[in-house]
Amino acid sequence: MEKLDLLYEGKAKRIYRTNDEGIVWVEYKDSATAFNGEKKAQITGKGRLNNEITSLLFEKLKNEGIQNHFIKKISETEQLVQKVDIIPLEVVVRNIIAGSLSKRLGIEEGISLEETIVEFYYKNDDLGDPLVTEDHIKTLKLATPEQLQILRTIGLKVNDILLTHFSSCNLRLVDFKLEFGITEDGQIILADEISPDTCRLWDKDTNEKFDKDVFRRDIGNLTEAYTEILNRLGGKQHV
Amino acid sequence: MEKLDLLYEGKAKRIYRTNDEGIVWVEYKDSATAFNGEKKAQITGKGRLNNEITSLLFEKLKNEGIQNHFIKKISETEQLVQKVDIIPLEVVVRNIIAGSLSKRLGIEEGISLEETIVEFYYKNDDLGDPLVTEDHIKTLKLATPEQLQILRTIGLKVNDILLTHFSSCNLRLVDFKLEFGITEDGQIILADEISPDTCRLWDKDTNEKFDKDVFRRDIGNLTEAYTEILNRLGGKQHV
Ligand SMILES: Nc1ncnc2c1ncn2[C@@H]1O[C@H](COP(=O)(O)OP(=O)(O)O)[C@@H](O)[C@H]1O
Ligand SMILES: Nc1ncnc2c1ncn2[C@@H]1O[C@H](COP(=O)(O)OP(=O)(O)O)[C@@H](O)[C@H]1O
Ligand SMILES: [Mg+2]
Ligand SMILES: [Mg+2]
Repeated sequence: MEKLDLLYEGKAKRIYRTNDEGIVWVEYKDSATAFNGEKKAQITGKGRLNNEITSLLFEKLKNEGIQNHFIKKISETEQLVQKVDIIPLEVVVRNIIAGSLSKRLGIEEGISLEETIVEFYYKNDDLGDPLVTEDHIKTLKLATPEQLQILRTIGLKVNDILLTHFSSCNLRLVDFKLEFGITEDGQIILADEISPDTCRLWDKDTNEKFDKDVFRRDIGNLTEAYTEILNRLGGKQHV
Repeated sequence: MEKLDLLYEGKAKRIYRTNDEGIVWVEYKDSATAFNGEKKAQITGKGRLNNEITSLLFEKLKNEGIQNHFIKKISETEQLVQKVDIIPLEVVVRNIIAGSLSKRLGIEEGISLEETIVEFYYKNDDLGDPLVTEDHIKTLKLATPEQLQILRTIGLKVNDILLTHFSSCNLRLVDFKLEFGITEDGQIILADEISPDTCRLWDKDTNEKFDKDVFRRDIGNLTEAYTEILNRLGGKQHV
């Protein structure tokens, strides 16, 4: 497999074309951003940690029957994935109230939800990734109602699998964000990443945060937090 | 009917108890507010205009089969309405993109929607009346999914009736906000007001605005704009 030209550079990853049309080469960067890019930092080791954690989780999800873009990890900071057309929606699944939902609904962070919440945000940096309803999504033609139903169903399945998986690592899966893409043959599959950048993960006993809130809120060392997640998931330790 | 003690004073109206348990006395105030109360003014005549316009529109809707709280106009600025428990949701119906939707979706104001949009906002001044999804509404226990379906259906019916009605007055109904309440016997009925404070109304030929955007955006005289609406609706003119 050859790494060819850069297709897209995002806030956390670079995507390169390869000599196989259907495969892209993903490189995880050491940059951390929050608040729609307003807060930024370079954090050595972050790219490696997220690449390793995402690889473990996508492997796990594949084994549990969730079709996804992951092909294989090819270096500490790189992986090969199936190329898809990303649906510009962030699918957020929530088990416990935190972050923006706490502010929107005026409910204290940490309250468990009786029913899991699935939200859709329009992936658009210029607009600040706004919350959108099904009516908005129809207007923007981002997805059909049938596709939305699929995103919701897969989101809830991923939640079931990850809740159990993280629970066995003594971690509470508070919420997480998924992205989906459409393959050449028109199938919707899970894409992008699942890492402490995109999940809220709290220690089950102490509620200590081991996710990007450590960076957003300046409440600890990001590398240590993400390393803790990787260790608990049983990944190789490069500390 | 006797006007008894003040039950609630809102931004635009005062609600008084009456000697009939099931009826409240509504007094329309001359105050104008926008941006969640940040912008304020006293505008002589506004209370009278909104009371008269709301009375005409609720009368019209009642004749068209939309059950609502309106009983009768009892003075220039007052009306009697059936007392309800207000569901703390603002039901917004949109035919043309404007205001916050234009900002949220990044689409220019004035574009017609292919399909009417119905949105729900949590009526909560402290939180700034945030947009909420059906999942959020379930979490907050503001309404059941069945009740939401009823709100949506009535909202769309009101839209059909008002689109035609305003169109016959050479006005474009861009969007509007409804509130609903629950009667003693558990029925959901339309309540609150429908006025240029709660609708966007543009002249069909010139797109001139005859609604609260005149105040929000400082683009004209509110009393003149609302008087134009009352005149076109065929109300008595007190100019
Ligand atoms: N399998 C894939 N094929 C194509 N693009 C992908 C795939 N998985 C993720 N992407 C996209 O790669 C881009 C880079 O990722 P990232 O740095 O996280 O970007 P962003 O700043 O938009 O969050 C994102 O737009 C993401 O949606
Ligand atoms: N039929 C009704 N019975 C009881 N309350 C009502 C009825 N219709 C409207 N209301 C409520 O009257 C209050 C006063 O109106 P308003 O001044 O517009 O208040 P706000 O500042 O909350 O918009 C609002 O809370 C509104 O929901
Ligand atoms: Mg990203
Ligand atoms: Mg009001």
